[in-house]
Amino acid sequence: MLSNIKIILVETSHPGNIGAVARAMKNMALSQLCLVAPKQFPSADATSRAAGAHDLLSNVQIVESLAEAVADCHIIIGASARDRTISWPELTARQAAEKFSGPQYAENKIGIVFGRENSGLKNDELDLCRFLVKIPCNSAFSSLNLAAAVQVVSYEFFMAQGKPSASEAGDKETDPLATAEQMESFYQHLYQTMADIGFLHVDKSQSIMRRLRRVFNRAQLDCKELDILRGILRFSQNHNQ
Amino acid sequence: MLSNIKIILVETSHPGNIGAVARAMKNMALSQLCLVAPKQFPSADATSRAAGAHDLLSNVQIVESLAEAVADCHIIIGASARDRTISWPELTARQAAEKFSGPQYAENKIGIVFGRENSGLKNDELDLCRFLVKIPCNSAFSSLNLAAAVQVVSYEFFMAQGKPSASEAGDKETDPLATAEQMESFYQHLYQTMADIGFLHVDKSQSIMRRLRRVFNRAQLDCKELDILRGILRFSQNHNQ
Repeated sequence: MLSNIKIILVETSHPGNIGAVARAMKNMALSQLCLVAPKQFPSADATSRAAGAHDLLSNVQIVESLAEAVADCHIIIGASARDRTISWPELTARQAAEKFSGPQYAENKIGIVFGRENSGLKNDELDLCRFLVKIPCNSAFSSLNLAAAVQVVSYEFFMAQGKPSASEAGDKETDPLATAEQMESFYQHLYQTMADIGFLHVDKSQSIMRRLRRVFNRAQLDCKELDILRGILRFSQNHNQ
Repeated sequence: MLSNIKIILVETSHPGNIGAVARAMKNMALSQLCLVAPKQFPSADATSRAAGAHDLLSNVQIVESLAEAVADCHIIIGASARDRTISWPELTARQAAEKFSGPQYAENKIGIVFGRENSGLKNDELDLCRFLVKIPCNSAFSSLNLAAAVQVVSYEFFMAQGKPSASEAGDKETDPLATAEQMESFYQHLYQTMADIGFLHVDKSQSIMRRLRRVFNRAQLDCKELDILRGILRFSQNHNQ
């Protein structure tokens, strides 16, 4: 559902790009734009480049952190041009659009995150993402303009509407997926439990938590599974007390 | 063949758009840009928006009429947002890319013509075109920015060159994936831990274990991640003992 897609821009430097993104989105029937700490907004440049997409700019959501931006999202996809040594499941723009346009995702809010013009997304921002999406392109010149990247991804989601999508393992869960906010509170609980049981070595805790986040992000938990895992954590905390 | 494609811009008003087109083309490995009577070129705006695609701008062909621009082309395709009363054979961007990327066209030069920002192509210019190409989009807001339109069309031609495939979950793990045997032994350990901490209700244990298996199977654990999880289980078992 195009109306369930939220395009999230992180710390955009050039307000003209924000306007061009709004236009690109509206061309492809997307409507939810969210800005994380934009350098300059509102701006005449943004308004001018938006052409007729002023409605998207006036309804824009502005927040201070990516965590706030994705709090209501069930599926979070990060756009990345760089090859990452750490592995996230990676999809092309077309694969992502076809996968998440299936009827099993109709009730889910999908956040697609685009990083800074020059430096993309940071690792702790990628940690919030379940998938990375890539736009196949010239490997010798792979940095698309921000609005151009949003244009291509939005276009693929537009094109995927009404196409049948193959169902996959795990796609048919009947319980609703956990939101990013629920996952965040699970990670806090996991961290606290690991501290309580004496597992965490302070010097390594950050890299271990990053690793665990990736595990559970990949698993894309539903609410029931989250309940089970949190139950286990509670019992671990209280064991023999 | 991407090297046989010539992008032709007719009487572009904004030089920034010319630069953005050059960047979009180079991102998709296209190299031949032709300008028909541009309002202003060269221009600092064009150079700045081209980012690293200066080579396309310095090799640009500049001509006075569309007839000159298409003189060396075998197949000429006009990009059009408007519905035309006169019928040209019409293709979507994807159909055009798939059709003309076939081996039977490998020796042909293909010209793709984009009209003015505000008024598109005139009828006598369309007369030079063999096909019209359309970008499917929001019918209530169908005018794409010029560079955005070139981006989508170039992207479709790039995509049509031998289908690229993105790596799937787990393909880029640097740590080897856990074997089924290792997973089985992890599930035993998880089960034992849940029993030790008093979490498991015997009557429900089977359905809970099934659910947890699905979670961790979906996550496709590598050996390092498995080590971390088993460490947590060990500490949970020994907590306060």
